[in-house]
Amino acid sequence: MTFPEALEQKKSAIDRLIEEHLRKEEGYASLLIEAVNYSLRVGGKRIRPILLTEANRLFAGEVMPEAGTLAVALEMIHTYSLVHDDLPAMDNDALRRGHPTTHAKYGEAMGILAGDALLNEAVEVAFSAVLSAEDNERTCKAAAMLFNKAGIGGMVGGQSADVLAEKRNEFIEEEKLNFIYENKTQALIEASVMCGAMLAPKASKEDVRALGRAASCIGMAFQIRDDILDVTGDEKSLGKPIGSDERNGKSTYVTFAGEEGAKKRIRELTDEACGIVSRYTGEDDFLIELFRFLAIRDI
Amino acid sequence: MTFPEALEQKKSAIDRLIEEHLRKEEGYASLLIEAVNYSLRVGGKRIRPILLTEANRLFAGEVMPEAGTLAVALEMIHTYSLVHDDLPAMDNDALRRGHPTTHAKYGEAMGILAGDALLNEAVEVAFSAVLSAEDNERTCKAAAMLFNKAGIGGMVGGQSADVLAEKRNEFIEEEKLNFIYENKTQALIEASVMCGAMLAPKASKEDVRALGRAASCIGMAFQIRDDILDVTGDEKSLGKPIGSDERNGKSTYVTFAGEEGAKKRIRELTDEACGIVSRYTGEDDFLIELFRFLAIRDI
Repeated sequence: MTFPEALEQKKSAIDRLIEEHLRKEEGYASLLIEAVNYSLRVGGKRIRPILLTEANRLFAGEVMPEAGTLAVALEMIHTYSLVHDDLPAMDNDALRRGHPTTHAKYGEAMGILAGDALLNEAVEVAFSAVLSAEDNERTCKAAAMLFNKAGIGGMVGGQSADVLAEKRNEFIEEEKLNFIYENKTQALIEASVMCGAMLAPKASKEDVRALGRAASCIGMAFQIRDDILDVTGDEKSLGKPIGSDERNGKSTYVTFAGEEGAKKRIRELTDEACGIVSRYTGEDDFLIELFRFLAIRDI
Repeated sequence: MTFPEALEQKKSAIDRLIEEHLRKEEGYASLLIEAVNYSLRVGGKRIRPILLTEANRLFAGEVMPEAGTLAVALEMIHTYSLVHDDLPAMDNDALRRGHPTTHAKYGEAMGILAGDALLNEAVEVAFSAVLSAEDNERTCKAAAMLFNKAGIGGMVGGQSADVLAEKRNEFIEEEKLNFIYENKTQALIEASVMCGAMLAPKASKEDVRALGRAASCIGMAFQIRDDILDVTGDEKSLGKPIGSDERNGKSTYVTFAGEEGAKKRIRELTDEACGIVSRYTGEDDFLIELFRFLAIRDI
Protein backbone atom coordinates (compact mmCIF):
# COMPACT_ATOMS: atom_id res chain seq x y z
CA MET A 1 0.00 0.00 0.00
CA THR A 2 1.35 3.46 -0.85
CA PHE A 3 1.50 6.15 1.83
CA PRO A 4 -1.44 8.15 0.40
CA GLU A 5 -3.55 4.97 0.37
CA ALA A 6 -2.56 4.13 3.93
CA LEU A 7 -3.33 7.70 5.03
CA GLU A 8 -6.72 7.59 3.35
CA GLN A 9 -7.49 4.26 5.00
CA LYS A 10 -6.60 5.56 8.44
CA LYS A 11 -8.61 8.74 7.85
CA SER A 12 -11.64 6.60 6.93
CA ALA A 13 -11.22 4.58 10.12
CA ILE A 14 -11.28 7.80 12.16
CA ASP A 15 -14.28 9.08 10.18
CA ARG A 16 -16.17 5.88 11.03
CA LEU A 17 -15.28 6.20 14.72
CA ILE A 18 -16.51 9.81 14.71
CA GLU A 19 -19.78 8.79 13.01
CA GLU A 20 -20.36 6.25 15.80
CA HIS A 21 -20.20 9.08 18.32
CA LEU A 22 -22.60 11.49 16.59
CA ARG A 23 -26.03 12.09 18.10
CA LYS A 24 -29.29 11.73 16.17
CA GLU A 25 -30.59 15.07 14.88
CA GLU A 26 -33.92 14.94 16.71
CA GLY A 27 -35.84 16.60 19.55
CA TYR A 28 -35.89 20.27 20.54
CA ALA A 29 -32.07 20.48 20.37
CA SER A 30 -31.98 19.01 16.85
CA LEU A 31 -30.57 22.14 15.17
CA LEU A 32 -27.72 22.28 17.69
CA ILE A 33 -26.96 18.60 17.06
CA GLU A 34 -27.11 19.24 13.30
CA ALA A 35 -24.59 22.11 13.68
CA VAL A 36 -22.32 19.90 15.81
CA ASN A 37 -22.46 17.03 13.31
CA TYR A 38 -21.92 19.39 10.37
CA SER A 39 -18.84 20.89 12.04
CA LEU A 40 -17.38 17.44 12.72
CA ARG A 41 -18.10 16.08 9.25
CA VAL A 42 -16.96 18.95 7.07
CA GLY A 43 -13.64 18.14 5.48
CA GLY A 44 -11.28 17.50 8.40
CA LYS A 45 -7.93 15.88 7.55
CA ARG A 46 -8.04 14.03 10.91
CA ILE A 47 -4.29 14.59 11.43
CA ARG A 48 -4.50 14.74 15.24
CA PRO A 49 -6.58 11.59 15.80
CA ILE A 50 -4.36 9.71 13.32
CA LEU A 51 -1.28 10.84 15.25
CA LEU A 52 -2.90 9.63 18.48
CA THR A 53 -3.91 6.22 17.19
CA GLU A 54 -0.63 5.64 15.33
CA ALA A 55 1.46 6.55 18.37
CA ASN A 56 -0.69 4.12 20.30
CA ARG A 57 -0.23 1.38 17.68
CA LEU A 58 3.55 1.87 17.89
CA PHE A 59 3.59 0.68 21.50
CA ALA A 60 0.41 -1.41 21.75
CA GLY A 61 0.74 -3.36 18.49
CA GLU A 62 -2.79 -2.51 17.48
CA VAL A 63 -4.93 0.49 18.31
CA MET A 64 -6.49 0.09 21.78
CA PRO A 65 -10.24 0.82 21.99
CA GLU A 66 -9.67 3.69 24.46
CA ALA A 67 -7.18 5.25 22.00
CA GLY A 68 -9.87 5.25 19.32
CA THR A 69 -12.35 6.84 21.69
CA LEU A 70 -9.91 9.51 22.91
CA ALA A 71 -9.01 10.21 19.26
CA VAL A 72 -12.67 11.14 18.72
CA ALA A 73 -12.61 13.39 21.80
CA LEU A 74 -9.43 15.03 20.47
CA GLU A 75 -11.00 15.76 17.08
CA MET A 76 -13.99 17.27 18.90
CA ILE A 77 -11.64 19.58 20.84
CA HIS A 78 -9.87 20.59 17.62
CA THR A 79 -13.21 21.16 15.87
CA TYR A 80 -14.68 23.31 18.65
CA SER A 81 -11.56 25.51 18.47
CA LEU A 82 -12.02 25.99 14.71
CA VAL A 83 -15.74 26.76 15.07
CA HIS A 84 -15.03 29.47 17.65
CA ASP A 85 -11.96 30.79 15.75
CA ASP A 86 -14.16 31.40 12.70
CA LEU A 87 -16.73 33.52 14.61
CA PRO A 88 -17.25 37.16 13.57
CA ALA A 89 -15.68 38.44 16.81
CA MET A 90 -12.60 36.29 16.16
CA ASP A 91 -11.23 35.62 12.63
CA ASN A 92 -14.62 36.27 10.98
CA ASP A 93 -14.24 33.54 8.34
CA ALA A 94 -17.25 32.51 6.25
CA LEU A 95 -15.42 29.65 4.52
CA ARG A 96 -13.23 26.82 5.77
CA ARG A 97 -11.93 24.05 3.51
CA GLY A 98 -14.25 25.40 0.82
CA HIS A 99 -17.41 24.99 2.91
CA PRO A 100 -19.47 27.54 4.88
CA THR A 101 -18.23 27.82 8.46
CA THR A 102 -20.63 26.71 11.20
CA HIS A 103 -21.80 30.21 12.16
CA ALA A 104 -22.15 31.19 8.49
CA LYS A 105 -24.52 28.26 8.02
CA TYR A 106 -26.37 28.20 11.36
CA GLY A 107 -26.06 31.75 12.69
CA GLU A 108 -23.70 33.25 15.22
CA ALA A 109 -25.52 32.13 18.39
CA MET A 110 -25.60 28.55 17.12
CA GLY A 111 -21.90 28.83 16.24
CA ILE A 112 -21.07 29.73 19.83
CA LEU A 113 -23.30 26.99 21.24
CA ALA A 114 -22.09 24.34 18.77
CA GLY A 115 -18.50 25.04 19.85
CA ASP A 116 -19.51 24.79 23.51
CA ALA A 117 -21.41 21.58 22.80
CA LEU A 118 -18.40 20.09 20.97
CA LEU A 119 -16.04 20.77 23.87
CA ASN A 120 -18.54 19.36 26.35
CA GLU A 121 -19.11 16.36 24.07
CA ALA A 122 -15.34 15.79 24.00
CA VAL A 123 -15.40 15.59 27.80
CA GLU A 124 -18.30 13.15 27.81
CA VAL A 125 -16.54 10.94 25.25
CA ALA A 126 -13.27 11.13 27.23
CA PHE A 127 -15.00 10.07 30.46
CA SER A 128 -16.67 7.18 28.62
CA ALA A 129 -13.19 6.09 27.45
CA VAL A 130 -11.91 6.21 31.04
CA LEU A 131 -14.87 4.33 32.49
CA SER A 132 -14.78 1.55 29.90
CA ALA A 133 -10.98 1.14 29.83
CA GLU A 134 -9.20 -1.83 31.32
CA ASP A 135 -6.80 0.49 33.14
CA ASN A 136 -8.92 3.42 34.40
CA GLU A 137 -6.08 5.34 35.98
CA ARG A 138 -3.76 5.21 32.99
CA THR A 139 -6.58 6.29 30.69
CA CYS A 140 -7.61 9.06 33.07
CA LYS A 141 -4.08 10.47 33.11
CA ALA A 142 -3.90 10.42 29.31
CA ALA A 143 -7.30 12.13 29.00
CA ALA A 144 -6.39 14.74 31.64
CA MET A 145 -3.20 15.54 29.73
CA LEU A 146 -5.23 16.16 26.53
CA PHE A 147 -7.40 18.74 28.26
CA ASN A 148 -4.38 20.33 29.96
CA LYS A 149 -2.81 20.94 26.56
CA ALA A 150 -6.13 22.26 25.22
CA GLY A 151 -6.65 24.73 28.05
CA ILE A 152 -5.20 27.96 29.41
CA GLY A 153 -1.74 26.42 29.70
CA GLY A 154 -1.96 25.32 26.06
CA MET A 155 -4.24 25.92 23.08
CA VAL A 156 -6.69 28.50 24.51
CA GLY A 157 -3.82 30.39 26.16
CA GLY A 158 -1.94 30.58 22.84
CA GLN A 159 -5.07 31.54 20.99
CA SER A 160 -5.78 34.40 23.39
CA ALA A 161 -2.30 35.90 22.88
CA ASP A 162 -2.71 35.60 19.10
CA VAL A 163 -6.18 37.15 18.97
CA LEU A 164 -5.22 39.98 21.29
CA ALA A 165 -2.14 40.92 19.27
CA GLU A 166 -4.25 40.88 16.11
CA LYS A 167 -7.07 43.00 17.57
CA ARG A 168 -4.55 45.53 18.83
CA ASN A 169 -2.73 45.38 15.52
CA GLU A 170 0.53 45.01 17.42
CA PHE A 171 3.82 43.73 16.07
CA ILE A 172 4.53 40.29 17.55
CA GLU A 173 8.14 39.96 18.69
CA GLU A 174 9.88 36.61 18.22
CA GLU A 175 9.52 35.44 21.84
CA LYS A 176 5.77 36.00 21.81
CA LEU A 177 5.49 34.37 18.39
CA ASN A 178 7.18 31.27 19.80
CA PHE A 179 4.74 31.29 22.73
CA ILE A 180 1.79 31.47 20.34
CA TYR A 181 3.13 28.67 18.11
CA GLU A 182 4.01 26.44 21.05
CA ASN A 183 0.57 26.80 22.55
CA LYS A 184 -1.95 27.53 19.83
CA THR A 185 -0.85 24.76 17.46
CA GLN A 186 1.98 22.69 18.86
CA ALA A 187 0.44 21.84 22.25
CA LEU A 188 -2.47 19.84 20.87
CA ILE A 189 -0.29 18.01 18.30
CA GLU A 190 2.15 17.14 21.08
CA ALA A 191 -0.78 15.97 23.21
CA SER A 192 -2.10 13.76 20.40
CA VAL A 193 1.11 11.75 20.15
CA MET A 194 1.77 11.67 23.90
CA CYS A 195 -1.78 10.54 24.63
CA GLY A 196 -1.49 7.62 22.20
CA ALA A 197 1.78 6.53 23.80
CA MET A 198 0.58 7.04 27.39
CA LEU A 199 -2.34 4.67 26.86
CA ALA A 200 -0.06 1.75 25.98
CA PRO A 201 1.15 -0.15 29.09
CA LYS A 202 4.43 -0.93 27.30
CA ALA A 203 5.45 2.72 26.84
CA SER A 204 7.72 3.95 29.63
CA LYS A 205 7.81 7.53 30.89
CA GLU A 206 10.97 8.07 28.82
CA ASP A 207 9.21 6.74 25.72
CA VAL A 208 6.31 9.15 26.26
CA ARG A 209 8.75 12.02 26.76
CA ALA A 210 10.70 11.13 23.61
CA LEU A 211 7.53 10.89 21.52
CA GLY A 212 6.37 14.17 23.01
CA ARG A 213 9.58 15.85 21.89
CA ALA A 214 9.18 14.41 18.38
CA ALA A 215 5.61 15.67 18.26
CA SER A 216 6.54 19.14 19.43
CA CYS A 217 9.07 19.33 16.56
CA ILE A 218 6.37 18.27 14.12
CA GLY A 219 3.86 20.69 15.62
CA MET A 220 6.28 23.56 15.14
CA ALA A 221 7.18 22.42 11.59
CA PHE A 222 3.45 22.18 10.83
CA GLN A 223 2.89 25.77 11.96
CA ILE A 224 5.90 27.13 10.02
CA ARG A 225 4.63 25.28 6.96
CA ASP A 226 1.35 27.16 7.44
CA ASP A 227 3.28 30.44 7.33
CA ILE A 228 5.05 29.44 4.10
CA LEU A 229 1.78 28.33 2.51
CA ASP A 230 0.29 31.71 3.30
CA VAL A 231 3.05 33.21 1.13
CA THR A 232 3.45 30.64 -1.65
CA GLY A 233 0.40 28.35 -1.43
CA ASP A 234 -2.29 27.69 -4.01
CA GLU A 235 -5.60 29.32 -3.04
CA LYS A 236 -7.66 26.65 -4.76
CA SER A 237 -6.09 23.62 -3.09
CA LEU A 238 -5.84 25.43 0.27
CA GLY A 239 -9.52 26.44 0.07
CA LYS A 240 -8.70 29.88 1.51
CA PRO A 241 -7.10 33.13 0.31
CA ILE A 242 -3.29 33.46 0.60
CA GLY A 243 -1.23 36.49 1.60
CA SER A 244 -3.53 37.30 4.51
CA ASP A 245 -0.68 37.42 7.07
CA GLU A 246 1.19 40.09 5.11
CA ARG A 247 -1.99 42.06 4.36
CA ASN A 248 -2.84 42.02 8.07
CA GLY A 249 0.68 43.12 8.97
CA LYS A 250 1.02 39.89 10.94
CA SER A 251 4.54 38.71 11.76
CA THR A 252 5.20 35.01 11.23
CA TYR A 253 8.22 32.74 11.28
CA VAL A 254 8.86 33.80 7.68
CA THR A 255 9.08 37.44 8.82
CA PHE A 256 11.98 36.61 11.11
CA ALA A 257 13.80 33.83 9.20
CA GLY A 258 12.82 34.44 5.56
CA GLU A 259 11.33 31.76 3.33
CA GLU A 260 14.59 29.81 2.97
CA GLY A 261 15.34 30.00 6.70
CA ALA A 262 11.81 28.75 7.41
CA LYS A 263 12.24 25.81 5.04
CA LYS A 264 15.58 24.95 6.60
CA ARG A 265 14.02 25.02 10.09
CA ILE A 266 11.25 22.68 8.94
CA ARG A 267 13.87 20.22 7.63
CA GLU A 268 15.80 20.30 10.92
CA LEU A 269 12.65 19.82 13.00
CA THR A 270 11.39 17.00 10.80
CA ASP A 271 14.75 15.23 10.85
CA GLU A 272 14.85 15.41 14.64
CA ALA A 273 11.29 14.09 14.96
CA CYS A 274 11.88 11.26 12.48
CA GLY A 275 15.16 10.38 14.17
CA ILE A 276 13.38 9.93 17.50
CA VAL A 277 10.50 7.93 16.10
CA SER A 278 12.72 5.68 13.97
CA ARG A 279 14.11 4.22 17.20
CA TYR A 280 10.65 2.73 17.78
CA THR A 281 9.15 2.07 14.38
CA GLY A 282 11.21 -0.84 13.05
CA GLU A 283 9.57 -2.06 9.85
CA ASP A 284 6.41 0.04 10.13
CA ASP A 285 7.36 3.53 9.11
CA PHE A 286 3.91 5.07 8.59
CA LEU A 287 4.42 7.61 11.38
CA ILE A 288 7.73 8.75 9.83
CA GLU A 289 6.10 9.12 6.44
CA LEU A 290 3.28 11.06 8.09
CA PHE A 291 5.77 13.41 9.76
CA ARG A 292 7.51 14.06 6.42
CA PHE A 293 4.12 14.53 4.72
CA LEU A 294 3.05 17.12 7.32
CA ALA A 295 6.30 19.05 6.80
CA ILE A 296 6.02 19.29 3.00
CA ARG A 297 2.20 19.39 2.65
CA ASP A 298 0.58 21.75 0.15
CA ILE A 299 -2.76 21.80 1.95
CA MET B 1 -26.34 30.22 63.78
CA THR B 2 -29.21 31.64 61.70
CA PHE B 3 -29.80 30.37 58.18
CA PRO B 4 -28.47 33.55 56.48
CA GLU B 5 -25.30 33.28 58.59
CA ALA B 6 -24.87 29.62 57.74
CA LEU B 7 -25.45 30.35 54.06
CA GLU B 8 -22.90 33.14 54.11
CA GLN B 9 -20.37 30.88 55.83
CA LYS B 10 -20.82 28.14 53.26
CA LYS B 11 -20.58 30.66 50.43
CA SER B 12 -17.29 31.93 51.87
CA ALA B 13 -15.96 28.37 52.05
CA ILE B 14 -16.76 27.90 48.34
CA ASP B 15 -15.23 31.29 47.50
CA ARG B 16 -12.00 30.22 49.22
CA LEU B 17 -11.96 26.91 47.32
CA ILE B 18 -12.44 28.78 44.05
CA GLU B 19 -9.61 31.20 44.91
CA GLU B 20 -7.31 28.21 45.44
CA HIS B 21 -8.01 27.10 41.88
CA LEU B 22 -7.39 30.44 40.15
CA ARG B 23 -4.28 30.87 38.01
CA LYS B 24 -1.81 33.72 38.43
CA GLU B 25 -2.43 36.58 36.01
CA GLU B 26 0.97 36.45 34.33
CA GLY B 27 2.64 35.55 31.04
CA TYR B 28 1.37 36.11 27.50
CA ALA B 29 -2.06 34.68 28.40
CA SER B 30 -2.43 37.01 31.39
CA LEU B 31 -5.40 38.94 30.02
CA LEU B 32 -7.29 35.68 29.38
CA ILE B 33 -6.54 34.54 32.93
CA GLU B 34 -7.67 37.94 34.23
CA ALA B 35 -10.95 37.61 32.32
CA VAL B 36 -11.44 34.07 33.67
CA ASN B 37 -10.74 35.13 37.26
CA TYR B 38 -12.96 38.20 36.92
CA SER B 39 -15.83 36.04 35.64
CA LEU B 40 -15.45 33.59 38.52
CA ARG B 41 -15.16 36.26 41.20
CA VAL B 42 -17.93 38.62 40.23
CA GLY B 43 -20.89 38.22 42.53
CA GLY B 44 -21.90 34.57 42.20
CA LYS B 45 -24.33 33.25 44.84
CA ARG B 46 -22.56 29.83 44.64
CA ILE B 47 -25.92 28.02 44.90
CA ARG B 48 -24.82 25.02 42.81
CA PRO B 49 -21.52 24.29 44.59
CA ILE B 50 -23.28 24.69 47.97
CA LEU B 51 -25.94 22.19 46.85
CA LEU B 52 -23.18 19.78 45.81
CA THR B 53 -21.18 20.00 49.02
CA GLU B 54 -24.27 19.94 51.28
CA ALA B 55 -25.69 16.86 49.54
CA ASN B 56 -22.27 15.29 50.02
CA ARG B 57 -22.19 16.24 53.72
CA LEU B 58 -25.62 14.65 54.18
CA PHE B 59 -24.21 11.20 53.37
CA ALA B 60 -20.50 11.58 54.15
CA GLY B 61 -20.79 13.42 57.49
CA GLU B 62 -18.33 16.07 56.38
CA VAL B 63 -17.56 17.41 52.92
CA MET B 64 -15.15 15.06 51.11
CA PRO B 65 -12.15 16.76 49.42
CA GLU B 66 -13.24 15.54 45.97
CA ALA B 67 -16.70 17.08 46.56
CA GLY B 68 -15.06 20.43 47.21
CA THR B 69 -12.98 20.13 44.05
CA LEU B 70 -15.93 19.07 41.88
CA ALA B 71 -17.93 21.95 43.36
CA VAL B 72 -15.30 24.31 41.93
CA ALA B 73 -15.52 22.57 38.54
CA LEU B 74 -19.32 22.91 38.67
CA GLU B 75 -19.15 26.65 39.37
CA MET B 76 -16.73 26.99 36.43
CA ILE B 77 -19.26 25.23 34.16
CA HIS B 78 -22.05 27.50 35.42
CA THR B 79 -19.86 30.59 34.96
CA TYR B 80 -18.80 29.72 31.40
CA SER B 81 -22.47 29.34 30.48
CA LEU B 82 -23.25 32.81 31.86
CA VAL B 83 -20.26 34.41 30.08
CA HIS B 84 -21.37 32.96 26.72
CA ASP B 85 -25.08 33.70 27.38
CA ASP B 86 -24.23 37.37 27.85
CA LEU B 87 -22.41 37.68 24.47
CA PRO B 88 -23.80 40.11 21.88
CA ALA B 89 -24.86 37.25 19.59
CA MET B 90 -26.78 35.66 22.48
CA ASP B 91 -28.60 37.74 25.15
CA ASN B 92 -26.37 40.80 24.59
CA ASP B 93 -26.20 41.82 28.23
CA ALA B 94 -23.69 44.44 29.38
CA LEU B 95 -24.50 44.02 33.08
CA ARG B 96 -24.85 41.01 35.35
CA ARG B 97 -25.38 41.28 39.10
CA GLY B 98 -24.65 45.00 38.74
CA HIS B 99 -21.19 44.49 37.21
CA PRO B 100 -20.00 44.68 33.58
CA THR B 101 -20.27 41.30 31.87
CA THR B 102 -17.00 39.66 30.80
CA HIS B 103 -17.24 40.67 27.13
CA ALA B 104 -18.31 44.21 28.08
CA LYS B 105 -15.11 44.52 30.11
CA TYR B 106 -12.62 42.55 28.02
CA GLY B 107 -14.05 42.61 24.49
CA GLU B 108 -16.10 40.08 22.59
CA ALA B 109 -13.23 37.82 21.45
CA MET B 110 -11.95 37.57 25.02
CA GLY B 111 -15.52 36.83 26.20
CA ILE B 112 -15.69 33.84 23.86
CA LEU B 113 -12.22 32.62 24.85
CA ALA B 114 -12.77 33.16 28.59
CA GLY B 115 -15.91 30.99 28.37
CA ASP B 116 -13.97 28.32 26.49
CA ALA B 117 -11.14 28.52 29.01
CA LEU B 118 -13.57 28.20 31.94
CA LEU B 119 -15.17 25.05 30.53
CA ASN B 120 -11.75 23.56 29.79
CA GLU B 121 -10.57 24.56 33.27
CA ALA B 122 -13.61 22.80 34.75
CA VAL B 123 -12.49 19.62 32.99
CA GLU B 124 -8.93 19.95 34.26
CA VAL B 125 -10.18 20.49 37.81
CA ALA B 126 -12.58 17.53 37.50
CA PHE B 127 -9.79 15.22 36.31
CA SER B 128 -7.59 16.38 39.18
CA ALA B 129 -10.43 15.46 41.57
CA VAL B 130 -10.68 11.99 40.00
CA LEU B 131 -6.93 11.37 40.06
CA SER B 132 -6.49 12.44 43.69
CA ALA B 133 -9.62 10.73 45.04
CA GLU B 134 -9.53 7.63 47.20
CA ASP B 135 -12.11 5.95 44.99
CA ASN B 136 -11.21 6.90 41.39
CA GLU B 137 -14.10 5.09 39.74
CA ARG B 138 -16.83 6.54 41.95
CA THR B 139 -15.43 10.05 41.49
CA CYS B 140 -15.10 9.53 37.75
CA LYS B 141 -18.75 8.50 37.48
CA ALA B 142 -19.86 11.55 39.47
CA ALA B 143 -17.73 13.88 37.32
CA ALA B 144 -18.95 12.29 34.09
CA MET B 145 -22.55 12.79 35.20
CA LEU B 146 -21.89 16.52 35.78
CA PHE B 147 -20.67 16.99 32.22
CA ASN B 148 -23.52 14.87 30.83
CA LYS B 149 -26.02 17.24 32.44
CA ALA B 150 -24.05 20.25 31.17
CA GLY B 151 -23.93 19.05 27.57
CA ILE B 152 -26.21 18.50 24.60
CA GLY B 153 -28.48 16.21 26.62
CA GLY B 154 -28.73 18.91 29.31
CA MET B 155 -27.81 22.56 29.70
CA VAL B 156 -26.42 23.37 26.22
CA GLY B 157 -29.28 21.50 24.57
CA GLY B 158 -31.85 23.49 26.57
CA GLN B 159 -30.03 26.72 25.91
CA SER B 160 -30.02 26.09 22.15
CA ALA B 161 -33.80 25.58 22.08
CA ASP B 162 -34.29 28.76 24.12
CA VAL B 163 -31.98 30.92 22.00
CA LEU B 164 -33.42 29.65 18.75
CA ALA B 165 -37.02 30.36 19.78
CA GLU B 166 -35.99 33.85 20.85
CA LYS B 167 -34.06 34.61 17.64
CA ARG B 168 -37.01 33.44 15.58
CA ASN B 169 -39.39 35.34 17.85
CA GLU B 170 -41.55 32.25 18.04
CA PHE B 171 -44.22 31.47 20.61
CA ILE B 172 -42.99 28.68 22.89
CA GLU B 173 -45.68 26.08 23.54
CA GLU B 174 -45.85 24.47 26.99
CA GLU B 175 -44.12 21.22 26.03
CA LYS B 176 -41.11 23.05 24.62
CA LEU B 177 -41.05 25.41 27.61
CA ASN B 178 -40.82 22.37 29.89
CA PHE B 179 -37.97 21.00 27.78
CA ILE B 180 -36.11 24.30 28.07
CA TYR B 181 -36.64 24.53 31.85
CA GLU B 182 -35.70 20.91 32.43
CA ASN B 183 -32.48 21.26 30.47
CA LYS B 184 -31.31 24.85 30.61
CA THR B 185 -31.69 25.33 34.37
CA GLN B 186 -32.91 22.19 36.10
CA ALA B 187 -30.33 19.74 34.70
CA LEU B 188 -27.29 21.37 36.31
CA ILE B 189 -29.07 21.90 39.66
CA GLU B 190 -30.10 18.23 39.61
CA ALA B 191 -26.51 17.30 38.74
CA SER B 192 -25.17 19.38 41.65
CA VAL B 193 -27.13 17.47 44.26
CA MET B 194 -26.72 14.06 42.61
CA CYS B 195 -22.96 14.55 42.26
CA GLY B 196 -22.58 15.35 45.96
CA ALA B 197 -24.55 12.23 46.92
CA MET B 198 -22.79 9.97 44.37
CA LEU B 199 -19.39 10.79 45.85
CA ALA B 200 -20.35 9.45 49.28
CA PRO B 201 -19.79 5.68 49.61
CA LYS B 202 -22.77 5.46 51.99
CA ALA B 203 -25.31 6.76 49.47
CA SER B 204 -27.09 3.94 47.63
CA LYS B 205 -28.37 4.19 44.08
CA GLU B 206 -31.88 4.74 45.49
CA ASP B 207 -30.59 7.56 47.69
CA VAL B 208 -28.97 9.25 44.67
CA ARG B 209 -32.18 8.84 42.69
CA ALA B 210 -34.31 10.29 45.51
CA LEU B 211 -31.97 13.27 45.94
CA GLY B 212 -32.00 13.77 42.16
CA ARG B 213 -35.79 13.93 42.21
CA ALA B 214 -35.73 16.47 45.05
CA ALA B 215 -33.20 18.56 43.15
CA SER B 216 -35.19 18.49 39.94
CA CYS B 217 -38.20 19.83 41.86
CA ILE B 218 -36.04 22.61 43.29
CA GLY B 219 -34.50 23.33 39.86
CA MET B 220 -37.96 23.76 38.36
CA ALA B 221 -39.15 25.88 41.31
CA PHE B 222 -36.01 28.02 40.93
CA GLN B 223 -36.78 28.66 37.26
CA ILE B 224 -40.46 29.45 37.89
CA ARG B 225 -39.36 31.85 40.64
CA ASP B 226 -37.20 33.56 37.99
CA ASP B 227 -40.29 34.02 35.83
CA ILE B 228 -42.23 35.56 38.74
CA LEU B 229 -39.33 37.87 39.63
CA ASP B 230 -39.28 39.09 36.03
CA VAL B 231 -42.88 40.27 36.60
CA THR B 232 -42.83 41.44 40.23
CA GLY B 233 -39.15 41.72 41.21
CA ASP B 234 -37.21 44.75 42.36
CA GLU B 235 -34.77 45.97 39.69
CA LYS B 236 -32.30 47.26 42.23
CA SER B 237 -31.94 44.11 44.30
CA LEU B 238 -32.05 41.88 41.19
CA GLY B 239 -29.36 43.97 39.48
CA LYS B 240 -31.16 43.69 36.13
CA PRO B 241 -34.26 45.22 34.46
CA ILE B 242 -37.60 43.47 35.04
CA GLY B 243 -40.43 42.90 32.56
CA SER B 244 -38.02 41.77 29.83
CA ASP B 245 -39.90 38.51 29.19
CA GLU B 246 -43.16 40.32 28.46
CA ARG B 247 -41.43 43.02 26.37
CA ASN B 248 -39.73 40.29 24.32
CA GLY B 249 -43.05 38.46 23.88
CA LYS B 250 -41.45 35.50 25.66
CA SER B 251 -43.77 32.89 27.12
CA THR B 252 -42.90 31.67 30.62
CA TYR B 253 -44.55 29.50 33.24
CA VAL B 254 -46.47 32.60 34.34
CA THR B 255 -47.94 32.91 30.82
CA PHE B 256 -49.51 29.47 31.10
CA ALA B 257 -50.39 29.26 34.81
CA GLY B 258 -50.72 32.90 35.88
CA GLU B 259 -48.86 34.37 38.84
CA GLU B 260 -50.98 32.57 41.45
CA GLY B 261 -50.70 29.26 39.60
CA ALA B 262 -46.95 29.69 39.38
CA LYS B 263 -46.67 30.39 43.11
CA LYS B 264 -48.81 27.34 43.88
CA ARG B 265 -46.59 25.16 41.69
CA ILE B 266 -43.48 26.43 43.48
CA ARG B 267 -45.04 25.50 46.84
CA GLU B 268 -45.90 21.99 45.62
CA LEU B 269 -42.43 21.43 44.17
CA THR B 270 -40.70 22.75 47.27
CA ASP B 271 -42.84 20.61 49.57
CA GLU B 272 -42.03 17.51 47.55
CA ALA B 273 -38.29 18.29 47.57
CA CYS B 274 -38.24 19.02 51.30
CA GLY B 275 -40.29 15.89 52.01
CA ILE B 276 -37.68 13.75 50.25
CA VAL B 277 -34.69 15.40 51.86
CA SER B 278 -36.22 15.37 55.37
CA ARG B 279 -35.96 11.57 55.30
CA TYR B 280 -32.18 12.02 55.35
CA THR B 281 -31.47 15.22 57.24
CA GLY B 282 -32.36 14.37 60.85
CA GLU B 283 -31.23 17.25 63.04
CA ASP B 284 -29.32 19.17 60.35
CA ASP B 285 -31.90 20.88 58.21
CA PHE B 286 -29.70 23.36 56.31
CA LEU B 287 -30.51 21.76 52.95
CA ILE B 288 -34.25 22.05 53.63
CA GLU B 289 -33.86 25.70 54.61
CA LEU B 290 -31.82 26.25 51.46
CA PHE B 291 -34.56 24.68 49.32
CA ARG B 292 -37.19 26.94 50.91
CA PHE B 293 -34.90 29.95 50.50
CA LEU B 294 -34.43 29.21 46.78
CA ALA B 295 -38.19 28.96 46.31
CA ILE B 296 -39.02 32.30 47.92
CA ARG B 297 -35.87 34.25 47.06
CA ASP B 298 -36.12 37.88 45.93
CA ILE B 299 -32.77 37.87 44.10
